[in-house]
Amino acid sequence: MKSLRKELWFHVPSRRGFVNITSQVEEAVKESGVTEGLVLVNAMHITASVFINDDEKGLHQDYDAWLEKLAPHEPVSQYRHNVGEDNADAHMKRQIMGREVVIAITGGTLDLGPWEQVFYGEFDGRRKKRALIKIIGE
Amino acid sequence: MKSLRKELWFHVPSRRGFVNITSQVEEAVKESGVTEGLVLVNAMHITASVFINDDEKGLHQDYDAWLEKLAPHEPVSQYRHNVGEDNADAHMKRQIMGREVVIAITGGTLDLGPWEQVFYGEFDGRRKKRALIKIIGE
Amino acid sequence: MKSLRKELWFHVPSRRGFVNITSQVEEAVKESGVTEGLVLVNAMHITASVFINDDEKGLHQDYDAWLEKLAPHEPVSQYRHNVGEDNADAHMKRQIMGREVVIAITGGTLDLGPWEQVFYGEFDGRRKKRALIKIIGE
Repeated sequence: MKSLRKELWFHVPSRRGFVNITSQVEEAVKESGVTEGLVLVNAMHITASVFINDDEKGLHQDYDAWLEKLAPHEPVSQYRHNVGEDNADAHMKRQIMGREVVIAITGGTLDLGPWEQVFYGEFDGRRKKRALIKIIGE
Repeated sequence: MKSLRKELWFHVPSRRGFVNITSQVEEAVKESGVTEGLVLVNAMHITASVFINDDEKGLHQDYDAWLEKLAPHEPVSQYRHNVGEDNADAHMKRQIMGREVVIAITGGTLDLGPWEQVFYGEFDGRRKKRALIKIIGE
Repeated sequence: MKSLRKELWFHVPSRRGFVNITSQVEEAVKESGVTEGLVLVNAMHITASVFINDDEKGLHQDYDAWLEKLAPHEPVSQYRHNVGEDNADAHMKRQIMGREVVIAITGGTLDLGPWEQVFYGEFDGRRKKRALIKIIGE
């Protein structure tokens, strides 16, 4: 069995944002030499997400507005977590979008559907944060 | 290490629907010859889901009504993604229900709890779409 | 390839509750002897969740209030699933929080970010239920 571990670092300049990391995950798969296996990609922070969806600007604006409706940032005082913090909403948004994805590796590449793209979803940015890539297979 | 890759194809005749795929996943596990391992099952489309829950008709109606409340299809103009498309809501519904499941394989079979059943969840049907099964183990 | 399977049992005395299971998952990893691999932890019941987030009391109260808003328990008659049952809301809450997590194993330990803790989320308690740990790797 082969394995590879890699961290991706981010510094999203705004509170919220989506970063396409598909090519970086693909690169890690190549680097691992794994041809048949699984790759796990997860946020290492509990106010961020790794998810798979479309790379379409309008959709990302829709996601942002929708998540704000389901778990609004303001008023920050509505959340008990927000004692000396203001990111409780980010902990909720991330549960809807998910912590992680697991992707098949087939023939040495990511086995994705035609529109599937991998994103890092930031809900409490303006600081350095990271995601983990772990690959196993042979 | 053994591995197996298989696609399941669907053509749900309505916009939304749930298809029980447990026996097809079980069959793929048998075919793989893997006795200890993991199976990943994921939608290959970004407006569909693979999830695990109960095979109960009332619950599926509840899911449909609930998802419509959280991310309504109409009016389609409320979503920026819907320029020449009308499926933005499907991209949201799928995030709540999830893209994928990972299931343990133990003793050559799916290691599921007593009521766990695997479903393909369609949120933008009336066309051919597919899910991926990837099995690794030994 | 090495593998290990283990069940964790719970009896949450209230309808809803969160149990930190990080040390039990870590213990299973040690027991498996796997140094590089993946661990799957999933609820074996469809009204419960395994998720990763912060071990912070205020946040858990926020989650409970938020999930009640998105999928209220009462009135139980609003759900078609609730014929002789009253737990339809639990099936919904669990979809938002997720059935499972997959965690990397690196150097023989759980490869978690600084605040990542693993929880069993109960949404229909007051009876014995369980989660599954499955580890593969080498």
